[in-house]
Amino acid sequence: MTALADHIAGVPLIDQHAHGCWLGAGDRLRFENALNEANTAPLADFDSGFDTQIGFAVRAHCAPLLGLPEHAEPHDYWRRRSQLTEAELARVFLQAAGVSDWLIDTGYANGVADVSQVAELSNGRAHEVVRLEQVAEQAAKAAGDYASAFEQILRQRTAAVVGTKSVLAYRGGFDGDLSEPSAAEVAEAADRWRDSGGQRLTDRVLLRFGLHQALRVGKPLQFHVGFGDRDCDLHKANPLYLLDFLRQSGDTPIVLLHCYPYEREAGYLAQAFNNVYLDGGLSVNHLGARAPAFIARLLELAPFRKIVYSSDAFGPAELHYLGTTLWRKGIDRVLSGFVDNGDWSSADAARVVDLIAHVNAERIYRLDAGVRDDDTRV
Amino acid sequence: MTALADHIAGVPLIDQHAHGCWLGAGDRLRFENALNEANTAPLADFDSGFDTQIGFAVRAHCAPLLGLPEHAEPHDYWRRRSQLTEAELARVFLQAAGVSDWLIDTGYANGVADVSQVAELSNGRAHEVVRLEQVAEQAAKAAGDYASAFEQILRQRTAAVVGTKSVLAYRGGFDGDLSEPSAAEVAEAADRWRDSGGQRLTDRVLLRFGLHQALRVGKPLQFHVGFGDRDCDLHKANPLYLLDFLRQSGDTPIVLLHCYPYEREAGYLAQAFNNVYLDGGLSVNHLGARAPAFIARLLELAPFRKIVYSSDAFGPAELHYLGTTLWRKGIDRVLSGFVDNGDWSSADAARVVDLIAHVNAERIYRLDAGVRDDDTRV
Amino acid sequence: MTALADHIAGVPLIDQHAHGCWLGAGDRLRFENALNEANTAPLADFDSGFDTQIGFAVRAHCAPLLGLPEHAEPHDYWRRRSQLTEAELARVFLQAAGVSDWLIDTGYANGVADVSQVAELSNGRAHEVVRLEQVAEQAAKAAGDYASAFEQILRQRTAAVVGTKSVLAYRGGFDGDLSEPSAAEVAEAADRWRDSGGQRLTDRVLLRFGLHQALRVGKPLQFHVGFGDRDCDLHKANPLYLLDFLRQSGDTPIVLLHCYPYEREAGYLAQAFNNVYLDGGLSVNHLGARAPAFIARLLELAPFRKIVYSSDAFGPAELHYLGTTLWRKGIDRVLSGFVDNGDWSSADAARVVDLIAHVNAERIYRLDAGVRDDDTRV
Repeated sequence: MTALADHIAGVPLIDQHAHGCWLGAGDRLRFENALNEANTAPLADFDSGFDTQIGFAVRAHCAPLLGLPEHAEPHDYWRRRSQLTEAELARVFLQAAGVSDWLIDTGYANGVADVSQVAELSNGRAHEVVRLEQVAEQAAKAAGDYASAFEQILRQRTAAVVGTKSVLAYRGGFDGDLSEPSAAEVAEAADRWRDSGGQRLTDRVLLRFGLHQALRVGKPLQFHVGFGDRDCDLHKANPLYLLDFLRQSGDTPIVLLHCYPYEREAGYLAQAFNNVYLDGGLSVNHLGARAPAFIARLLELAPFRKIVYSSDAFGPAELHYLGTTLWRKGIDRVLSGFVDNGDWSSADAARVVDLIAHVNAERIYRLDAGVRDDDTRV
Repeated sequence: MTALADHIAGVPLIDQHAHGCWLGAGDRLRFENALNEANTAPLADFDSGFDTQIGFAVRAHCAPLLGLPEHAEPHDYWRRRSQLTEAELARVFLQAAGVSDWLIDTGYANGVADVSQVAELSNGRAHEVVRLEQVAEQAAKAAGDYASAFEQILRQRTAAVVGTKSVLAYRGGFDGDLSEPSAAEVAEAADRWRDSGGQRLTDRVLLRFGLHQALRVGKPLQFHVGFGDRDCDLHKANPLYLLDFLRQSGDTPIVLLHCYPYEREAGYLAQAFNNVYLDGGLSVNHLGARAPAFIARLLELAPFRKIVYSSDAFGPAELHYLGTTLWRKGIDRVLSGFVDNGDWSSADAARVVDLIAHVNAERIYRLDAGVRDDDTRV
Repeated sequence: MTALADHIAGVPLIDQHAHGCWLGAGDRLRFENALNEANTAPLADFDSGFDTQIGFAVRAHCAPLLGLPEHAEPHDYWRRRSQLTEAELARVFLQAAGVSDWLIDTGYANGVADVSQVAELSNGRAHEVVRLEQVAEQAAKAAGDYASAFEQILRQRTAAVVGTKSVLAYRGGFDGDLSEPSAAEVAEAADRWRDSGGQRLTDRVLLRFGLHQALRVGKPLQFHVGFGDRDCDLHKANPLYLLDFLRQSGDTPIVLLHCYPYEREAGYLAQAFNNVYLDGGLSVNHLGARAPAFIARLLELAPFRKIVYSSDAFGPAELHYLGTTLWRKGIDRVLSGFVDNGDWSSADAARVVDLIAHVNAERIYRLDAGVRDDDTRV
């Protein structure tokens, strides 16, 4: 083991975008479907969630933590997993992840641990990221003027959280006008939406309004970019369509999440704008053995002070652990290659590991002592 | 040689999308132009079809089958090739390919072997894939109502074939509405087309009609995706534009062919829809020494039960052989890497090879004994 | 060192697209900002131009030429660099580049060496490439009919230069109609533009007019493609949007510059059209340790007689040298891999190196003895 590999194995991570892990029992179908991100239908009878890169990665890297050999057969893996409760699994995997801080998106949280439970199960710190579309739905239900209600709820909620998140990619995509709408347009759109029930926000005017309110708050704004489930029109989730918005976005940090297959475009944006950041969570887990190639592409145009780590884990606690394991293995492989080829020094490689692992995220989310003390540390 | 390499060298393949090989004599220009897929004009005087990845691959991997050293000079390769008839060349290369079944697209077949000739020359089985745009042209010439004629010809022809194929990518591309047109719209469009001569179908309504008829037939529907000749607007052959169509496509298997440079987008679709499959034929041959990098990208988001093999060979019999050789070399290199890196077990690697080589194609094209007996085995 | 590595280390290059190097003194901020291509604002306080792939590459590969160890610390690098004038630095780096001919784009030349200065500083030959948008701005200021003025200035200027260049990517992008406008349309658009001051050309009609005039001149026409600064809408700089224009472009060589992240699409176009060429300048420098992966992708669909070398260096003389160093290192790595894998012979690899290094560029720019004698050799 080289000094660099050693450093990578031990560096604490900030998982700057994750969801809760399951707490309630479920069957094998639930587990296998959780290994497929893009499909919204149940897997076909002929298929198996285990016969994927992420399935192979779970068997290779998670099995040993449950006392099984690497590459344990799916049947054996499932049987062993079933002997433990989800909370027991969570303690095993979250505590083994080497993550000091979890930033939890609470906008989609059915059946999974909340922020304080993640902190407790992981023996770590957990912080909240609030979803703008959820704030909008709360504002739709509130009394009085929509815009004022949105602003008030957003201020209130963001006072206690580290960042905001937008799923605009799932609500029509990035292409089209993303400028700030006028007060009159917002009022009219809000009336229309409230009249039609105020469910699942897809109104473009109100989505745009929410984004510009988040810029005013100034805490880091995360965007779902690229790869997700098939409700998203993937070609409209190309971050280059955000160019005009980014040109108006000022100093508020904008974090581009996931990014597959647009990670090179996203890296370009991280070079082009002082306030844009690049993250490859979700993708790393689903790419498994191919994660090193993806991690290498994250290290192209994006300046090294603009790249952050996340897992985007949701559901199986394996994913909260797998993200860190695949990232550690992958970045070791990529950076050792740079060092062996004479392009990087070993000391620089270790420093870039620190930047991506925690230094950059600490800076943009202000996860310093002051904030941490107020937070849901258990 | 490792056990995995040994297994890969011997595994029988189903070439699930190919065309016939030449039968008649031709000159060196014909041969060199056949090593360029994208150009529709004759190669420039200063150029040579040999100075390409596919040209280098022919010299490296096909030369030994003609008794020449690896990397034989172009001049020597051409001279030796000229000493044999196309039929003799076909017997050499098709029989060395290790292909049990060839699925032959008969929609473009000028000057090449037909289905039964491929079976005879290869000592294998051959099956037909029928092109929807050809059925449309037959229906345009038939008497009576266009829609009824199309349906009848399609039913008749597909009874004896294993699948259908669409070249929508060459007839306007994927973007735009692909929903099923009404009967009235079809009748009106058919009248218009018939009045204008009923040649080369580009009418959007009739193309959409054909696709939805193919879904009703239920046999696998292949789409040309991405890379082809320059008559195709490559940016409109991005498979993500098929999203809305796929959302309506039910259970009929949809096979995305070629896919370069959209193989990662296509792999995403294979994960997102239970009925979508991923193939990298044509691209593998033209990428030559770069095929391993492409094959690796095919193994990203697509579940392993959703990936199939093809050559898309047309013309020189070398290409029917080269496809399997580059695929075997490439998948060996990629999967050995996964195994050496500790991400996959060797047994899993061998099993995934089987899935891609023949198991998945056997399942979706129902190439079981019953079908095979009815087929053009010689 | 293998024979191939030896050959690559010594092969003379034609840098077929570069700008001048700085001549006047500047501070550290100027230098660090020059290591960021995409950003148009000054780097943020928390950032450093050194913490990028290109920054690491400068420290690894340029430091030894200044008497520093490889991977010298940024502070040490800057201090040593500051002890030399820009002209001294230029002599060091340009003369070490192994470049016989520099093709200099004079359309953007604030504060940098001109064509004859590049020749003098490098001890090499330098040739001019004239920017079409600059010709347009000259025509706007000229007396009389715009079209005639444009034609006359273009003929006059191109008589003494080796090629033309378009920055259409920065003036609205490639998508949309690029056919030749009528004389009446040109006259009307020119009046409008002149009336509004005749500054920075963005009028689509006049941009189209200029391109078709350049086709008539017949000297190679270079296009900025893909990656550049954020004034460019990167998604509109996808070269596939040039398809219709290329279909009408006849025999005039068209050179696609930079191309990241569209290098695979550009390689496809180089296969599809006898007159289209592929170049990866600018990208290679900014990718640093990742340049080999990019250079490998340049060697996919593009025929080997259609690929050329450039640095696109501007400003720091390091970049004129770094381009050749990263290219030599990268192509050695990629081609040795092809040879080791049995796909290419070593002799073929050396021949392809020559094609890309200088043979292809000599042919299309006609850099034969006759032209060279007339040129700005010092």
